[in-house]
Formats: sequence, structure tokens, C-alpha cells
Amino acid sequence: MEIGHHISQRYNQELEEIRTHVLKMGALVESQAENAVKALLERDGKLAKKVASSDYMVNRMEVEIDEECTQVLARRQPAASDLRLIIAVIKVITDLERIGDEAEKIGRYSRKLAKKPPITGMHATLSHLGELVLGMLHQALDAFARMDTEQALSVITGSNNINDEFDDLSRLLITYMMEDPHNIKQALRVIWCARALERIGDHSRNICEYVIFLVRGKDIRHTDLQEILDEIPDDAD
Amino acid sequence: MEIGHHISQRYNQELEEIRTHVLKMGALVESQAENAVKALLERDGKLAKKVASSDYMVNRMEVEIDEECTQVLARRQPAASDLRLIIAVIKVITDLERIGDEAEKIGRYSRKLAKKPPITGMHATLSHLGELVLGMLHQALDAFARMDTEQALSVITGSNNINDEFDDLSRLLITYMMEDPHNIKQALRVIWCARALERIGDHSRNICEYVIFLVRGKDIRHTDLQEILDEIPDDAD
Repeated sequence: MEIGHHISQRYNQELEEIRTHVLKMGALVESQAENAVKALLERDGKLAKKVASSDYMVNRMEVEIDEECTQVLARRQPAASDLRLIIAVIKVITDLERIGDEAEKIGRYSRKLAKKPPITGMHATLSHLGELVLGMLHQALDAFARMDTEQALSVITGSNNINDEFDDLSRLLITYMMEDPHNIKQALRVIWCARALERIGDHSRNICEYVIFLVRGKDIRHTDLQEILDEIPDDAD
Repeated sequence: MEIGHHISQRYNQELEEIRTHVLKMGALVESQAENAVKALLERDGKLAKKVASSDYMVNRMEVEIDEECTQVLARRQPAASDLRLIIAVIKVITDLERIGDEAEKIGRYSRKLAKKPPITGMHATLSHLGELVLGMLHQALDAFARMDTEQALSVITGSNNINDEFDDLSRLLITYMMEDPHNIKQALRVIWCARALERIGDHSRNICEYVIFLVRGKDIRHTDLQEILDEIPDDAD
């Protein structure tokens, strides 16, 4: 998909700027999610504090990009793929902002977790969940940057793994809590972090759905994935 | 705020239809949230099952309204308050859809909860949280229907109560789990439901922020509430 085919240079520039700003916001959100996972796994209270208090930049970017989109809609009256770009951007930045919220939450819980003795036997599973979710977010943002529908579809298809990982972790934590009820508070904080990670996965999936809407003009939310896969020929762009 | 002041009758009608559809979607989502809370509190497995499996209607409405908005943007090139209406609708229905998701989750957990003996000493707090959240959702939808910014602001101001209620409930549940580790699984399900209720409160708050954006053209997300309150005179529309 191309943008930048308008007679008005200024209009081209406006659309390109919006795209650039979304990518910047995505990069910021991604680095916050990475820091959140790092703070959680490495029990780094200082980093956790930083993550827990830097959400305001993401929030500001969301409001600014929304405003840019409103301006373009009002002044340029975009049609077809430009209009889809603007609508997709309005949706994508909402998900990005909420990923920022979840990262902030992980930061908050990680700060508390870092102050107490670590929960043993949890590190591998938690680390694996973090890796999966960060990978998914990275691929979703990359799919948006390159307007790559195949990658977007593969993120959507792979997203079920996250739920399995989360269930595994929940089981481990329940056992841990049953063994010693004094562990309950700490274990709950880990569960909240895992839930926040799961949500980051959900939002990444949403972003991929908007990428497909943007490129193919087809809204695939809430539809059976197999239908979409059947419809798209192997050699599709 | 008025809509319906256009020379084109058809255009007026289209905007009015979009508004009506959002109100319909809101009513459906509200009844699902009510049923979810009822199923949870009354341990009604049958109702829980119904809530857990009726999300598809909400999803379909979201996609349809999104499509209507895209059509109006493409064909009518709305300006000023009409444009804000469309943007607010695109945002509001995303929150409505996610409230539907949370209600579905409560339905799923309530089904499992209804199969086991009840957790004692929790009913009053849980029922109070449910009441608060349902009241907030109702007021948010009403503020949207009547474009009432004062009511929207009062929902936003009151939303902190939800977090306090959630904290109270968490404390109760942790005590309950510590008393008898066999309660842990059941208690966790109650916590998940409480979290889902808390999220419904968050989404209701979002809806109120879009109402204010829609009527006043001012984006108040992520801003200090006191600033807004200071700015609005007592006798504002």
C-alpha cells in the first residue's frame, strides 16, 4: 500500500507525518513494555519505578495523534485507503496507549515484588511468557510499519499460545500459594503481572487486525480466522 | 448539541441512525453486564452460560457501526461537531465492545463458581462493587444519550471509588485464601470477576471522556480533572 500519491505535497506530508508519529509512539510503548518485563524478571526496583511513572509521554502522544487525524479528516476529506489509514490509526493508538497502561501496572507490581524475597520456580515460565508477548508486540508494530498483512495474520494465529502460557503460570502460582499461604500476596502480584502481559498480547492482536483492515479494506474482527485464511491466496501480495 | 441541521435530509438521517445504533449497542452491553453481575451474585449457572455465549451480537454491532461511520466520513465529509460525533462514536463502540468482553468473562467464571460451594462473607462487598460499576455504566450511557457533560464529569470524578472497593474486596479474599488454602481457586475466580468489574468501570469512564470531547471539542483524556472543573462555569450548558 502506498501513501503519498496526492497532488498536494502538503497532504502527502501530513499523512506521512501521522504514520511516523504512530511508529514513534509504538517504539516508545515497546521500550516501556520491554523495561517492564526486565524490571519484573530481574527484580529491578529502580527500573520498575521508572516504568511506573513514564506513562504520561505515551498519553500525550495519543492525544496529539488523535488531533492530527481529526485535522486531516476535517481539512482533507480523505477517501479510500487514506481514510482507512486514518481510521486504523485512531484505533491503533488506543491499543498502544493501553499497552502503555499495562506496562505501567507491571512496573507498579514489580516495585513491590522487588522488595520481598523472590518466588522460586517461577522464573522460567514467567520469562517465557514475557518473551512471547514482547515478540508478539514487536511483530505487530513491524507489521504496521511495513503494512505486512501476512505477518499480521501470523501474529493473530499465534496469539492462542499466550493463553496457554498464562494458564500454565496460573497453575504454578496456585500450587505455590497452597504450599504456603504466606506466599499469597506475592503470588497474586505475579498473577497481576501475567494478566497485564496477556492483555499486551490481546492489544497486539488488535493492532494486527487493524493492519489487515487497512491494507485489504476488510474488517476481520470477530470473524472466523479460517475463513480469512481460505480467502487469501498463497501468493497474495 | 444538535445534530440534524443539514440541508440534506438523508445526511441528517444517517447521523441520527448512527447515534441510535450506538444507543442500541449500549443498551445490549448494559443488559449483558447486568446479567453477568446477577449470575455472579445469585450463583445462577444458567444465566452465566447465557452471558458467556452472547457476545457475538455486540461484536457484530461494533463492526456494523464502524462501517456506517466509515461510509459517512467518505461520502459526507463531515466537519466540526459532526466530525467529532463520528470520532467519538468510533472510540465509544470500542469501549462498549470491551465491556461486552468483560461481561462474557464474568459469565465464564460465574459458571464455574456456581458449581462449587459459595464463598462466605463476600456477598455484601461484591454486591456493592457490582452496584457501583453498573450505576457508573448506566450513567455513562445516559450521558452519551443526552450529551450531558456535567453527568459525564460526575462519573469521572466518582470513578475512584471503584478502585477502593476493589482493594477492599482483594483484602477480604486474601484473608479467605490464607485461612484455608483449599479456597484459593474459588477465591481467584472471584478476584477475576472483580477485576472485570473494575475494567467495566474504566471503560465507562472512557465513554464519559469522549462525551466531553464530543460536546466541548476538548480532549480531556489524561489531564488533571481539577483543571477541567475550574474551567467550566457552574451554569455551563
